[in-house]
Amino acid sequence: MPIRTLIWNENVHERRNKVVSDLYPEGIHGAISKALSIDKGIEAATATLDQPGQGLSEEKLAKTDVLLWWGHVAHGDVTDANVELVAKRVHEGMGLIVLHSGHFSKIFKRLMGTPCALKWREAGERERLWVINRGHPIAKGLGEAIVLENEEMYGEPFSIPEPMETVFVSWFQGGEVFRSGVTYERGAGKIFYFRPGHETYPTYHDQDVHKVLRNAVHWAYNPAPAWVAINDAPNVPVEKALEPIVERGGKLHKKGEAGHR
Amino acid sequence: MPIRTLIWNENVHERRNKVVSDLYPEGIHGAISKALSIDKGIEAATATLDQPGQGLSEEKLAKTDVLLWWGHVAHGDVTDANVELVAKRVHEGMGLIVLHSGHFSKIFKRLMGTPCALKWREAGERERLWVINRGHPIAKGLGEAIVLENEEMYGEPFSIPEPMETVFVSWFQGGEVFRSGVTYERGAGKIFYFRPGHETYPTYHDQDVHKVLRNAVHWAYNPAPAWVAINDAPNVPVEKALEPIVERGGKLHKKGEAGHR
Amino acid sequence: MPIRTLIWNENVHERRNKVVSDLYPEGIHGAISKALSIDKGIEAATATLDQPGQGLSEEKLAKTDVLLWWGHVAHGDVTDANVELVAKRVHEGMGLIVLHSGHFSKIFKRLMGTPCALKWREAGERERLWVINRGHPIAKGLGEAIVLENEEMYGEPFSIPEPMETVFVSWFQGGEVFRSGVTYERGAGKIFYFRPGHETYPTYHDQDVHKVLRNAVHWAYNPAPAWVAINDAPNVPVEKALEPIVERGGKLHKKGEAGHR
Amino acid sequence: MPIRTLIWNENVHERRNKVVSDLYPEGIHGAISKALSIDKGIEAATATLDQPGQGLSEEKLAKTDVLLWWGHVAHGDVTDANVELVAKRVHEGMGLIVLHSGHFSKIFKRLMGTPCALKWREAGERERLWVINRGHPIAKGLGEAIVLENEEMYGEPFSIPEPMETVFVSWFQGGEVFRSGVTYERGAGKIFYFRPGHETYPTYHDQDVHKVLRNAVHWAYNPAPAWVAINDAPNVPVEKALEPIVERGGKLHKKGEAGHR
Repeated sequence: MPIRTLIWNENVHERRNKVVSDLYPEGIHGAISKALSIDKGIEAATATLDQPGQGLSEEKLAKTDVLLWWGHVAHGDVTDANVELVAKRVHEGMGLIVLHSGHFSKIFKRLMGTPCALKWREAGERERLWVINRGHPIAKGLGEAIVLENEEMYGEPFSIPEPMETVFVSWFQGGEVFRSGVTYERGAGKIFYFRPGHETYPTYHDQDVHKVLRNAVHWAYNPAPAWVAINDAPNVPVEKALEPIVERGGKLHKKGEAGHR
Repeated sequence: MPIRTLIWNENVHERRNKVVSDLYPEGIHGAISKALSIDKGIEAATATLDQPGQGLSEEKLAKTDVLLWWGHVAHGDVTDANVELVAKRVHEGMGLIVLHSGHFSKIFKRLMGTPCALKWREAGERERLWVINRGHPIAKGLGEAIVLENEEMYGEPFSIPEPMETVFVSWFQGGEVFRSGVTYERGAGKIFYFRPGHETYPTYHDQDVHKVLRNAVHWAYNPAPAWVAINDAPNVPVEKALEPIVERGGKLHKKGEAGHR
Repeated sequence: MPIRTLIWNENVHERRNKVVSDLYPEGIHGAISKALSIDKGIEAATATLDQPGQGLSEEKLAKTDVLLWWGHVAHGDVTDANVELVAKRVHEGMGLIVLHSGHFSKIFKRLMGTPCALKWREAGERERLWVINRGHPIAKGLGEAIVLENEEMYGEPFSIPEPMETVFVSWFQGGEVFRSGVTYERGAGKIFYFRPGHETYPTYHDQDVHKVLRNAVHWAYNPAPAWVAINDAPNVPVEKALEPIVERGGKLHKKGEAGHR
Repeated sequence: MPIRTLIWNENVHERRNKVVSDLYPEGIHGAISKALSIDKGIEAATATLDQPGQGLSEEKLAKTDVLLWWGHVAHGDVTDANVELVAKRVHEGMGLIVLHSGHFSKIFKRLMGTPCALKWREAGERERLWVINRGHPIAKGLGEAIVLENEEMYGEPFSIPEPMETVFVSWFQGGEVFRSGVTYERGAGKIFYFRPGHETYPTYHDQDVHKVLRNAVHWAYNPAPAWVAINDAPNVPVEKALEPIVERGGKLHKKGEAGHR
């Protein structure tokens, strides 16, 4: 059974800005969907902000193995309820791939717990993404670096927690560096942030970028059953303790009472 | 100059429940304040939920080096605005020590990005907190373990991100284990979660627990100036690039325009 | 193509001690081999210390995807040359699963860089291995804990580097705890240490232990081509720099000279 | 009491190569010693390879709080016994700062467990070390980056384990990037690797580099008593178990027998 991916895109600049719509006539989500669909092991669906429920629902997410997220100008429009739906699914085991300006998306900041801020410059300069770990599954099939002739610059400090793994570090022509591919685990969910992808450049038509996206889907996929109990805080009654114990001391909770949250 | 700590306590059960008020007539915050004040290098202030502004303000937090947090029944009452004030200060470099049932506080979940759930049992059983790293500053002056004759059980899985360091792991009489002392960094702020401290037991009168709290204050203290720019996403104009570059390709932003959030 | 595993066992106590040989008439390696072979996706070979070359060679390791290691009384007999052969293959991408008393094997200490010491007691007491992350691939198919009625106790502090992930934490009847399942990456190789497995108890006949071993093989397997260049320190000549630069300043190395090691 | 540092230098090129001796007439160790001594809180001693015992001994290391290490052409000459002496002290709590070409020193590879290889080019090009975490103690007093007009290039992949913290990432004029300041913990010892410092350039006369070295000494200093028992594997006899247990099952070890290593 193929991995079920959902590519979520705010899809705003594609409709407002001719530079962007000329580059991505089917939207950034359309370009990514095409790139993923080459792989028989991946099934690609798309969703956009202008759809009912902002393209998201509990049912849809329950059937999603890996979610890809692209947003920029409309981060603030995504409802907090939808952010919580996505966070819950990541904790349960859904993979999440956050792209480029998605560093400032509500869902990425929600899962990182930090500002996720950075420096930037839109000058179409050269970016070189160096592969840090040649044997990492996300770097499969790449050379020692990915070169993008035109990209937006993102510069450190990138205020994220220390990553589990750093897969790519970028060099920029104008003098900056950036941790461009970083991994995390949150609950049973695996998260990959991938830096390039500014909407005014043809990044999502690049063959190496396509490889990274497909590799990342395979890496982020957790085949385990959803860990639905991850939010529970169950009481273990004294009489069901695994080792025999006798109740002692003062008590706050009455028998069978739920814990406080 | 001593480290300026603020001990925040919801202070609810101390006023409602005789078991608790008999144990902590000056509140849990009072007991902790006394324990910290023994150290000439620490200055201890307290704040409670029932005070104006819930005992918190931008000014007060700006003068706080390390915040200690105890909450249980009233997590939901803490305003989101206050949670954001605290999170901002942690990112800037304020230390944070989260105590016991504070695992479910809004601020801890905000900074972890995970559910922070666990199993529990209120049976006054024996807990033994094993020191994982004998040379860690937080374990200074302790033996190989802290033994608490009566404590609430917290059991794994504890749904937190992988810690930077695991300092204590607990053994419980009833058969469970728990990662009872874990450290994190978020921005310039250092965070320590310390498990014991159920309000119906005399945990905050224990000498080893006092040592841990004092040690943790010293560990969490970051003397660096507040990293106030951590939330900024400054544009670096092309003409100010560190290496000379020529602008190329399509553009989204007009000159001097702010980035999207 | 199945994952090619090699189960290395010193195979000493199986031949000297009747308790052990009665439990493991085909050796611990034989019991593990049987457990792995149930899985069609795994191919299991074995090797022992008394074989030519101590059962190891560059050719054999080149065809090994995941190596399992059991040793205890004969750690010192394993040649340093063999330890380096194994380390090199782990860096290139071979998975390594270190079992029980293998915590003191040369290869584990070589890859960790720390003493890997611990407390111990041989009393046949009860061990309960709690699953920390229910969604982790190594915990697939398990309940909330594995219970082993008779095991040797290992107690903290376990002097290892902070793990990438903690998968299991053990509770012991006599009052100790232990980080019983921990993961690492070293170069392109994934490493899993799994605590239980004392030779005088039937641990390697336990169904849950079998599951963990099979799961760990799948987790540790890196399908990427061997990263054979990981030990190289190549010079990048000035005239082949990716961005044009002009040589400046003093020089130590003559043109084409190799670097120092 | 000041922090007792020992600056170890192989001191070979300073005596063989005029470029180097002109830059560092008192040796690289001399330049570093001068830089550290500005700080009243630091006491700086030096040691070189040509001294008796290679400048190292158990007694000397026992009185060292933080060791700085510079080596390049003579890594292979350092005795394995000396490497083990240093490793033992790091495990016990001595800080270690490894400089530049020390990435290939025996002691760094010993503590990392990986090849620690990288790319290099000696062209005197510009290096810019970006500060990743503005609030980190090692970055105290620095601006957003350190610029070194002439340095040797080191390029990724740098085959080290994932760092605990990444403090600096370097940009090189010729197109490469490098994780130039990374931290680790091994036992009770804190380790900092700092990239710049090629012997043919005036790096150790740079004021920002001096600041980093002084900051790193303070950061790496662990005031805890030496954790001398970190290598022990003590047996806990059944009759001394913390919780009463009854011995069961087969046994390998006779009463009071030492464990196998």
